[in-house]
Amino acid sequence: MANYNCENWQKSMKLRFDYNNMMAKYVGETEGLQEKELNELNDFAINAFNKFNAIRGTGMTGWADLPYNQGEIVEDVIKTADDIRKNFKYFVVLGIGGSALGPSAVFQALCHLHHNDLPDDKRNAPKFYVEDNVDPERMQALLDVIDVNETMFNVVTKSGATSETMAQYLIIMDILKAKFGDKAKEHIIATTSSAKGNLIKIAKEEGLKTFYIPDGVGGRFSELCPVGLLPASVLGIDIKELLKGAEYMDKLCATSDVKSNPALMSALLSYITINKGKNISVMMPYADGLKLVADWYCQLWAESLGKTFDNDGKKVFVGQTPVKALGVTDQHSQVQLYTEGPFDKVTTFLAVDNYRKTFIIADGCEDIPDVNFLCGHTMNELIQAERVATEYALTVKERLNRTIYLPEINAFTIGQLLFFFELETAYAGEMFNINTYNQPGVEGGKNATYALLGRKGYEEKKAELNNAPKKDDKFII
Amino acid sequence: MANYNCENWQKSMKLRFDYNNMMAKYVGETEGLQEKELNELNDFAINAFNKFNAIRGTGMTGWADLPYNQGEIVEDVIKTADDIRKNFKYFVVLGIGGSALGPSAVFQALCHLHHNDLPDDKRNAPKFYVEDNVDPERMQALLDVIDVNETMFNVVTKSGATSETMAQYLIIMDILKAKFGDKAKEHIIATTSSAKGNLIKIAKEEGLKTFYIPDGVGGRFSELCPVGLLPASVLGIDIKELLKGAEYMDKLCATSDVKSNPALMSALLSYITINKGKNISVMMPYADGLKLVADWYCQLWAESLGKTFDNDGKKVFVGQTPVKALGVTDQHSQVQLYTEGPFDKVTTFLAVDNYRKTFIIADGCEDIPDVNFLCGHTMNELIQAERVATEYALTVKERLNRTIYLPEINAFTIGQLLFFFELETAYAGEMFNINTYNQPGVEGGKNATYALLGRKGYEEKKAELNNAPKKDDKFII
Repeated sequence: MANYNCENWQKSMKLRFDYNNMMAKYVGETEGLQEKELNELNDFAINAFNKFNAIRGTGMTGWADLPYNQGEIVEDVIKTADDIRKNFKYFVVLGIGGSALGPSAVFQALCHLHHNDLPDDKRNAPKFYVEDNVDPERMQALLDVIDVNETMFNVVTKSGATSETMAQYLIIMDILKAKFGDKAKEHIIATTSSAKGNLIKIAKEEGLKTFYIPDGVGGRFSELCPVGLLPASVLGIDIKELLKGAEYMDKLCATSDVKSNPALMSALLSYITINKGKNISVMMPYADGLKLVADWYCQLWAESLGKTFDNDGKKVFVGQTPVKALGVTDQHSQVQLYTEGPFDKVTTFLAVDNYRKTFIIADGCEDIPDVNFLCGHTMNELIQAERVATEYALTVKERLNRTIYLPEINAFTIGQLLFFFELETAYAGEMFNINTYNQPGVEGGKNATYALLGRKGYEEKKAELNNAPKKDDKFII
Repeated sequence: MANYNCENWQKSMKLRFDYNNMMAKYVGETEGLQEKELNELNDFAINAFNKFNAIRGTGMTGWADLPYNQGEIVEDVIKTADDIRKNFKYFVVLGIGGSALGPSAVFQALCHLHHNDLPDDKRNAPKFYVEDNVDPERMQALLDVIDVNETMFNVVTKSGATSETMAQYLIIMDILKAKFGDKAKEHIIATTSSAKGNLIKIAKEEGLKTFYIPDGVGGRFSELCPVGLLPASVLGIDIKELLKGAEYMDKLCATSDVKSNPALMSALLSYITINKGKNISVMMPYADGLKLVADWYCQLWAESLGKTFDNDGKKVFVGQTPVKALGVTDQHSQVQLYTEGPFDKVTTFLAVDNYRKTFIIADGCEDIPDVNFLCGHTMNELIQAERVATEYALTVKERLNRTIYLPEINAFTIGQLLFFFELETAYAGEMFNINTYNQPGVEGGKNATYALLGRKGYEEKKAELNNAPKKDDKFII
């Protein structure tokens, strides 16, 4: 039986959400919250919980079922991934937004930190690239370092209308067809909607192996469907463990007792502090492995909660700007501002109890006490001490902060962490009474792009752009 | 004569600062600025300009002289770098904060985007790693991918009291001494203060080749001294061109005519909008090559302006939180929030007129107009259209934004860009009447770290930490 099916092991790997430093007792009366405030909003939080559970699994909340309903899909993913691992040296994701951020986050967390740099005999999975931009310099750079003969591409877009991804697809498919003719299809897998959209149509015409993105799963909630599962499995990550972690977190959050439901409490704390003007949410992992989880979180939080209208059509201009920082690195970049600047943010630390390596700081510099005091300690002790010290420094300066502890970084804890943030976001969306799952603000730019590229049907938009006030040269220096 | 010494070429490579979309005429009356407002603050801006020029080159503003006073140093750096390029396969920077962010930014901008992944015969410089954290997993990962026999390390800390960097130094020196004995010193170069601090003492004892960080150059202003010049030169970057670019920008900003001095106007716009409550500054380059310039900027802006006290000892809690975003990538992550959420930010786009590669989007998908309209366009046109479209989408939603155009990405334009931000920061600091160059808020965490690690002399701090209120288990879920 795999570890992750063992109840005791699961318990030992449970995430802990610590919000002491959100409370007045710890962070001071001016900034800190009172238990009374939380109690007064207890029914409000329960209401959000109930509202989410009433729609859970329907509409765009299909993501909540992903830990439970993918038995056969998971087997297909694993089988496909095993074949890819045997036959290809490079695996390249063509995708943007959620199609890129999830796979990158899980890769960074669960593979070697210099995976692509490892010698072939030490790397037990293909080299991995996620192409999430249309910078021509980057496309050329990719082609300079992969051998297309040994590359499997994975084109990921639900609608097949994502210009960036489809531009990449056109370029890559052209190269593949020139090289392999009818066998081009053996080098590319599509992950897309099963029914609607362009990519499924193309995939059928071209005879591509295809994985499906369920209707109710949007880009930023897609990491636990084949969008994320296929790349993870290709990289040798145990995707069953990942899903089991998500399920475990889901169970922890199955209660409407706010004080026992970590994602619900976290959402409530966010709701209260956003309403008090904390318009910045800093996500600060103390582990290089979790750096891109912060990136993934930034999309989830920004796109889900950043909305002009609430569900009643009222203009609310809600949202909190997520900021990614890395501990200890950004102590030397951002913490000066966080401790001394405006009281406009809440910092969430991601702590790791046990790193996967231990490093002793060697002896030396006996005559220099500034340096020598480090000797004999481990790097592990140093990074923990710096995290605790930074938490303390923020707290005594009355800066709101909280910490999520991961016992270690593995597929089970990462599954928990991703699902925690998804649930927190869902609850927070209900509290703000907004549509958590759409992104109407992206349309404006999309349509303007179409117009600028002369797409048919966008002549009116083109005229609108042409009629915009011309820039004044005196404001260009 | 090198290109960068030719006046016409320099002119063709001049950066352009476009602030049309900060003005009411373009972004609307509610959010936009009036020319009248700018005129009213003209003397105020000139005063900041004069105040900076009065101290320029003294105290901690030695960075402003770096384009002019490094003739011999540059020759030594280039000679040393040439030797390293010939004799080593890996170059590893041990540094944190400015010692890491500058070298990383210039590397990303001016080297191949997958430099380390290139086959040896296509990579004309050592593989490059910047170690700016004390995560033990990362230290192990580094040692897994380098061969110490072929590695030159560059330990960078002005004071030699930076715990993170000195911990790395102790570990690496221990490895080098075990391997090479007395010849360990041939594998490590120190960049540090010439007079004060621990590292210069160690370097002398160990007989290390040493480059100096001038007294008046702090970490976040150090990229154009040997801290940045040595790594850049090792990577094959023309550091004279980089410095020439900085000098060129300095000359552009040598006027107190606010409307002709791009950095001064930019600082004034920042000052006005920060005072109007825009507490977030988004830096959004439309080029993968400029991604880490945004990281570098984030330190410069956050640490310099994030201050509790002004120069008169008054509590001001000033500062603006910098956020890094990448175009077009983050259009699918952050732009929903930027266009629809609170009016709390100013976005600065970094645009590139000419990318160093061109990529045509190949034909295909003739029956799918959603995709086929892309065919025949270049990726270059697509990324430009998306940038212009995003700028337009923000502007019509009354979101303040501005754009810095780089004619292309090269050492000369990067030199301009870095110096632009340094000058802007210096002017803004004068406007806010704060100490732009210190970081007192970092001390709190540093001392707590010492206490936690049991360093002698920090017993009182340790007692303080022990006396902090114990965390309450009920706030940990």
